[in-house]
Amino acid sequence: MSDTDSVLFANEAFYRAFADGDARAMEQVWSGRDDITCLHPGWGPIFGRAEVIASWAAIFASAQAPGIDCLDPRARIHGDVAYVVCFEQLPGGRLAATNLFAREGAVWKMILHQAGPTGAGPASAPERPTGSIH
Amino acid sequence: MSDTDSVLFANEAFYRAFADGDARAMEQVWSGRDDITCLHPGWGPIFGRAEVIASWAAIFASAQAPGIDCLDPRARIHGDVAYVVCFEQLPGGRLAATNLFAREGAVWKMILHQAGPTGAGPASAPERPTGSIH
Repeated sequence: MSDTDSVLFANEAFYRAFADGDARAMEQVWSGRDDITCLHPGWGPIFGRAEVIASWAAIFASAQAPGIDCLDPRARIHGDVAYVVCFEQLPGGRLAATNLFAREGAVWKMILHQAGPTGAGPASAPERPTGSIH
Repeated sequence: MSDTDSVLFANEAFYRAFADGDARAMEQVWSGRDDITCLHPGWGPIFGRAEVIASWAAIFASAQAPGIDCLDPRARIHGDVAYVVCFEQLPGGRLAATNLFAREGAVWKMILHQAGPTGAGPASAPERPTGSIH
């Protein structure tokens, strides 16, 4: 399996755990390191393994199965670190996400996740939406 | 200078170029590689050096000086890749951002930027805002 394929495989495992609301699987997706970071949309950044894992458990405990789909994932490899950028289709809207992974032995483990709202979609060219503040 | 200090220095150069609306300086902040990615808030992901550089030129050409401040930057190093997570204070609101850098010789160059709205701030604990879709 190429690096790109194995990173995309790790990314798929993340979205499978997310869609299943499977807190145990989500724990396995993330690195065991303590210096991991998660930026859920609208939240402040969450630092530290215990805090990140707890945030997913809280999401899974409070919500219906989120029914998330990952669309148009694209992987970029930089040695032992890689990221996937993709769209997330949820019932409440569409997000764009960055998923950062580090190589740990034969597998890639998540070290950062950020998702935020996007006005674009996988089939459309990048556009600047009305009301952007950047 | 430690790795952490030099990554935070590169992060500062990014926000200085941003605040100054300095397209030439912004070109220097980013890696010369073609596999760079930028996720402006609300936009679709932008892939490729020419496209990313053009997006900043368009922002700087269309807007007043954005008056951006970077707050509470925190750096994490993973060998030759590092990220900074921080808040961005703009006139129109507050964002949370991930800035990813790769070591190129003696300096760190940006390879990915994502910013999105946050209901939290540097002095507050991470909280889940009302209306989150994650």
